[in-house]
Amino acid sequence: MWTLMEEHLESIGIGAGILGTGGGGNPYVGQLRARQAMRENGAVEVLSPAEVPADARVICIGAIGAPTVGVEKIRDYQSYYALRALESFLGTTATALITNEIGGSSSVEVVVPASIAKLPIVDADGMGRAFPEIQMKTFFTYGIPCTPMALADEKGNTAIISQAVNARWVERLARSLTVQMGSVACYAVAPMSAHQVRETAVPHTLSLARDLGQAVQRARNLHENITEAILGVCGGKVLFQGKISDVERRTTEGFSRGKVSIGGTGEYQGHQMTIEFQNENLIALVDERVVCVVPDLICLTDDRGEPMTTERLRYGFRVTVFGFPSPELWTTAEGLAVVGPKAFGYNLDYTPLEL
Amino acid sequence: MWTLMEEHLESIGIGAGILGTGGGGNPYVGQLRARQAMRENGAVEVLSPAEVPADARVICIGAIGAPTVGVEKIRDYQSYYALRALESFLGTTATALITNEIGGSSSVEVVVPASIAKLPIVDADGMGRAFPEIQMKTFFTYGIPCTPMALADEKGNTAIISQAVNARWVERLARSLTVQMGSVACYAVAPMSAHQVRETAVPHTLSLARDLGQAVQRARNLHENITEAILGVCGGKVLFQGKISDVERRTTEGFSRGKVSIGGTGEYQGHQMTIEFQNENLIALVDERVVCVVPDLICLTDDRGEPMTTERLRYGFRVTVFGFPSPELWTTAEGLAVVGPKAFGYNLDYTPLEL
Repeated sequence: MWTLMEEHLESIGIGAGILGTGGGGNPYVGQLRARQAMRENGAVEVLSPAEVPADARVICIGAIGAPTVGVEKIRDYQSYYALRALESFLGTTATALITNEIGGSSSVEVVVPASIAKLPIVDADGMGRAFPEIQMKTFFTYGIPCTPMALADEKGNTAIISQAVNARWVERLARSLTVQMGSVACYAVAPMSAHQVRETAVPHTLSLARDLGQAVQRARNLHENITEAILGVCGGKVLFQGKISDVERRTTEGFSRGKVSIGGTGEYQGHQMTIEFQNENLIALVDERVVCVVPDLICLTDDRGEPMTTERLRYGFRVTVFGFPSPELWTTAEGLAVVGPKAFGYNLDYTPLEL
Repeated sequence: MWTLMEEHLESIGIGAGILGTGGGGNPYVGQLRARQAMRENGAVEVLSPAEVPADARVICIGAIGAPTVGVEKIRDYQSYYALRALESFLGTTATALITNEIGGSSSVEVVVPASIAKLPIVDADGMGRAFPEIQMKTFFTYGIPCTPMALADEKGNTAIISQAVNARWVERLARSLTVQMGSVACYAVAPMSAHQVRETAVPHTLSLARDLGQAVQRARNLHENITEAILGVCGGKVLFQGKISDVERRTTEGFSRGKVSIGGTGEYQGHQMTIEFQNENLIALVDERVVCVVPDLICLTDDRGEPMTTERLRYGFRVTVFGFPSPELWTTAEGLAVVGPKAFGYNLDYTPLEL
């Protein structure tokens, strides 16, 4: 157990921003909201999965929508409204919360309701990174019910998807509500037991995000090599370095979709990387050869180790592109069926990142 | 009190089809489903508003979507699923049901859950006709809460709009869910007391639909004048007679929208009527002069008195166009704000139909 204090938010923002593979929402915007909630309501306890009491009811909190909108739209405590709407639907209360993804602002969205409702959060998540669609969670992939799910906006609308054919239908219904709610909403989803969390969540990812962020901060302060600091925490490797030469992006159907082209510099001079994204980076090619593909992580930072989320991508930025291996829960047949390259429309088998 | 038997369904289909002002869904399709439910579960009692017990919980049942889709898409007992989802959300059960609108298939949709759940229905509705949008109900206009609302499709998805800024937001969220659910869904909405039903519903409209249908059937059988039979029950007047010369129609955003042109015949020879619709007929012009506008009823029949709903409109059909005065609950300032010409984007004040 550790206590998540205001001072951790910046580290987690950096770490989760990197692990968010370009998505999960702008980390800075998420931090501001979490900081405000903690100032008003206090710090939040973090339990490792092993520490979650056997009789716990762990509710998953997330944000849904287009990061391009999330960075502009004012949100208040809508994830807390979603939690309360779900609890009232269930006629029961949560005893702990868990984030749906470790990525960008989403990883600290859970801090808002946790702080207000004085609930601990579990040091784990349902992705081990960020993914664009609601059904793309280890929880649902390994048998946790995807309903009921409560959604809330900042205006005073709440809706509950009480029953759905499958998790893809939850995504479909939730996405259409989200578009109406202004392309960003927050949600709370059916409670899990401690056993279910231990079986289906990607463990220790909040600590990982914090450690990664702290390593970057330390390297910055000590003028050490930031790239090595990142690799030291996450494993993985550098896929490319260069300057953004083009960004195509559109905010459509509740997503940011597009691709970014990067002209190589240094040892990558003369080569070109292209990365395609749907909120998150999905596939990276160097000179049209695939070098990394979902569910492996494709993560961009600037030269200060600051995460480059997809909505921040601009012509001229210098970036380092990292590849990190996927959590093991995603590289099974069940996992790849949900988040493998084919699930995103690529006619491609998953080949693990060469390390 | 009277008992709604299988034999009433055809009369109600004709009557509600006419009163539905082109919308409310294809009456024949609705009848088939109601007939099936009644064969399996028995007839349904109908209470006049005065007969509803003081402690009743009356839940409103409706269908939402595009009639063009409703006529093709197979539905099962999804209005019953919506009722059960709402009851389970509320932790209480209905003691009576009421239809949201008297029009087309919608007016007998309520028979399905009433028959299955053995509940009486109230002889009244929330429109006194049909309207395309959910907020367009006398209930909501006169202060009945518009949430929670449960929606269900035939696939096994249910959702609940648990809280909304206002009834327009309910429409917006429900419509987007409906599009995902396949452009037709059924809903159940917050219970009313007997007093609330008596204050806010348009009374006796189910009997009116039955009587109107029976008058048409009688005139057909006795080879009497069908037009006069219709006017004898509803009041109002004939606005036009002629042959459909053009239909523009598109199914978009969960609605059928378009317009129909009618070349006059008989005493209307040399004139042209144009009717614009959004599921329901909204405005009728003769030679570009407005002759009838919402909330007054613009109702088309063929020469057998069979209702011409907007999805049946075709080139070459001979039609009679009736104008009937609006229920009084709609011609107040509050009513016109919700369903007057301006609510549909016409820069026009409401002028009552000249009789």
